[in-house]
Amino acid sequence: MSTRALISEFTGTALLVFFAVGAAVLAGDFIGTVGIALAFGFVLLALSYALGPVSGCHVNPAVTLGMLAARRIDPRTAVGYWVAQVLGCIVGAAVLFLLAKQVPGLQTHAQFGTNGFADRSAVELGTGGAFLAEVVLTFLFVFVYLSVTHRVAVVGFDGLPIGLALAAVHIVGIPLTGTSVNPARSLGPALFAGGAAITQLWLFILAPLIGGGLAALAQRFTHPPGGRLREADRVV
Amino acid sequence: MSTRALISEFTGTALLVFFAVGAAVLAGDFIGTVGIALAFGFVLLALSYALGPVSGCHVNPAVTLGMLAARRIDPRTAVGYWVAQVLGCIVGAAVLFLLAKQVPGLQTHAQFGTNGFADRSAVELGTGGAFLAEVVLTFLFVFVYLSVTHRVAVVGFDGLPIGLALAAVHIVGIPLTGTSVNPARSLGPALFAGGAAITQLWLFILAPLIGGGLAALAQRFTHPPGGRLREADRVV
Amino acid sequence: MSTRALISEFTGTALLVFFAVGAAVLAGDFIGTVGIALAFGFVLLALSYALGPVSGCHVNPAVTLGMLAARRIDPRTAVGYWVAQVLGCIVGAAVLFLLAKQVPGLQTHAQFGTNGFADRSAVELGTGGAFLAEVVLTFLFVFVYLSVTHRVAVVGFDGLPIGLALAAVHIVGIPLTGTSVNPARSLGPALFAGGAAITQLWLFILAPLIGGGLAALAQRFTHPPGGRLREADRVV
Amino acid sequence: MSTRALISEFTGTALLVFFAVGAAVLAGDFIGTVGIALAFGFVLLALSYALGPVSGCHVNPAVTLGMLAARRIDPRTAVGYWVAQVLGCIVGAAVLFLLAKQVPGLQTHAQFGTNGFADRSAVELGTGGAFLAEVVLTFLFVFVYLSVTHRVAVVGFDGLPIGLALAAVHIVGIPLTGTSVNPARSLGPALFAGGAAITQLWLFILAPLIGGGLAALAQRFTHPPGGRLREADRVV
Repeated sequence: MSTRALISEFTGTALLVFFAVGAAVLAGDFIGTVGIALAFGFVLLALSYALGPVSGCHVNPAVTLGMLAARRIDPRTAVGYWVAQVLGCIVGAAVLFLLAKQVPGLQTHAQFGTNGFADRSAVELGTGGAFLAEVVLTFLFVFVYLSVTHRVAVVGFDGLPIGLALAAVHIVGIPLTGTSVNPARSLGPALFAGGAAITQLWLFILAPLIGGGLAALAQRFTHPPGGRLREADRVV
Repeated sequence: MSTRALISEFTGTALLVFFAVGAAVLAGDFIGTVGIALAFGFVLLALSYALGPVSGCHVNPAVTLGMLAARRIDPRTAVGYWVAQVLGCIVGAAVLFLLAKQVPGLQTHAQFGTNGFADRSAVELGTGGAFLAEVVLTFLFVFVYLSVTHRVAVVGFDGLPIGLALAAVHIVGIPLTGTSVNPARSLGPALFAGGAAITQLWLFILAPLIGGGLAALAQRFTHPPGGRLREADRVV
Repeated sequence: MSTRALISEFTGTALLVFFAVGAAVLAGDFIGTVGIALAFGFVLLALSYALGPVSGCHVNPAVTLGMLAARRIDPRTAVGYWVAQVLGCIVGAAVLFLLAKQVPGLQTHAQFGTNGFADRSAVELGTGGAFLAEVVLTFLFVFVYLSVTHRVAVVGFDGLPIGLALAAVHIVGIPLTGTSVNPARSLGPALFAGGAAITQLWLFILAPLIGGGLAALAQRFTHPPGGRLREADRVV
Repeated sequence: MSTRALISEFTGTALLVFFAVGAAVLAGDFIGTVGIALAFGFVLLALSYALGPVSGCHVNPAVTLGMLAARRIDPRTAVGYWVAQVLGCIVGAAVLFLLAKQVPGLQTHAQFGTNGFADRSAVELGTGGAFLAEVVLTFLFVFVYLSVTHRVAVVGFDGLPIGLALAAVHIVGIPLTGTSVNPARSLGPALFAGGAAITQLWLFILAPLIGGGLAALAQRFTHPPGGRLREADRVV
């Protein structure tokens, strides 16, 4: 775990929160659900190729948990990444908050791109349904991450499926919960939105982590052991 | 045919059905035809890079038939894959059904993302037209699969065209039949929808298999013999 | 010029016309301009990876002219490709016509996805404007084709920019002329639509060929001579 | 800095302005914000693979500044590129202006795809907000450019994240300022639109250059020194 890797996780998480959550907050009325989903996917795809060679570009505590459960990073790296991701998501949300306040009449401040269930879900999905949704959505996303960065995958073809998998889980999940699959993506905006976004936050931390852990478990049955430490793919 | 390959086909088919059919069932009103098509394409692209090195990521009985007809897998592997795909599509549809039931007022339960023709086609396409459509749609998709995994293709550039070809056949075919091109994708949801989805199921099993077989036939005239067994591309 | 290459050009052009023009004819009301543009781009991207190693996947007489002008194919190959493309576009349009006739109440038969100008342009663009538009649109597309298949480009990264460049010229050009940039794409549907589609056909043959020729000329100033024969990249 | 590189920067900037700004001017009513964003992204992706091996395909003074600040090009190359980009953006806008005049009743001539703030922003974002937005948008875009062309990145996987990052910053930024992140993209159209587009131009030159400079600064903390001169990647 290099300092460059920690700075990369911090920077990447901040940029992901600013741009992907920002698409919903600043441009949602213009771009719709598919536009928001593409923003999430394209930003992560770009960050993945930009920061992947340095830190693996987790930028997501559920991905880091999956990598830890798969024994492809050590616990110290995982803790360092989690701290960097939490700091990053706060900074990203803060800059977005600063910008959103400048937009006259922006009515989305209350929600501020936060995830939600029950009356805060577009289809009024309840707690159980939202929990199930976030577990399955995160399962796919982290399973893809772990597999396409595995030693049996072709080098270079990781950021493309990672980014487009994130777009896909948003296309499906935005009407349900706004799609978290990433506790940091939920935490940052919730701190600035406050209220129900905070009281519902537990689900968007717990469910993605469970989904990520299950992905690492499932991968033991599909992929051979000994996946490489992606961080160490190339000398930095 | 390894156990890992069978588990991969099972898992991949379950995830494809849950997410791609789920896009139509859970989010269709929010994302429209193009959004559904992108969900199908992006999920398959991601799965293709995740599971391709293990099983080839057929996740589709018509693809498996095409690979068998092209003599790139043996009959025993084909039968094993088909069983895994059928089990996978049922599990994927079951989890989707469980989640969809939690959405208050979701009116799409009757259709449940199933394929259809005649009065179940958005443009009221009859039996003959639907059969022709599914044969041609599957022909393109399987022809692309067989060609981009052929030994003359550049390694790594398979999941991208496979995924986007699936998106393209959905952009064209959703208004016609909902687009099957994959008997497993049709079977899983139909078992839970019942009724006309079951009585029309034969077309979405037969036509894609014929399209896949014709693709293998056509490829004999465009590509040289001796295509590699994609499953064996890399040691697992 | 192998027989496999000629069959590839025939098959590829037929599939491109069926699927990309078919998106406009069969699904246009459901997918809009962006959906049609993505269909064109995704189908060509997929075909490019499927048939590129065999024939270069021109599937477009303007691309073939550009390759000839750049001295990367010989005149005999060019003529063979042109014949295969013309036969392919007719077969693709014929199958599409057969399917479209089965759709009850499809009102687009008269236009049938043909290109047009003046009163047949969505923005009523006149002859001069349409000619300029088609020259510039084709210039970009063929310039990209010639450059990304040039020996200085990274192997494998050709189908992606070729396909997405076609999507881009359709996003811009559909409101203007429906976007041809490919005389075969215009010819096939026009033969079945008849009437004004035939009398306006000259522009959609001439302007793309001029655009393709100009792209080959421009490339002499940006790229070094000696670009490889893409057809011969890999032994087939 | 070869003559071929200068011609590439000129040609690429002209094509980017014509097609990407043209999407907004000619087709905006048909394709919406997401369609315009995809046009920008897909055109740059294609140009990046077409011209990257020759000039690096900056086609953007902010990218050139970032490369200069990162000491990956020398000042003489930077000045040459800037001149080529300015000439290119004027020619691209001129051809677009010529074509747009042929479209009967095109009401967007006054704006002509120019960037703007205050009453010229779709959400009436003020000067400070627009400045902040352009700095952050450009920061992401140039940071991605510098990182994916860095020596630690996998060769070939540059045009994909560069193009899709541009699409993402447009998805977020079009409602705010129309998204510049590229002084040349703002300059060319403004010269033909005149009026407020000219008086507001300073922001769309200054803010992107600051964002590009900050990206180069940030990259010192994430990436090791000694990034390659992308221009010299392959012998031309």
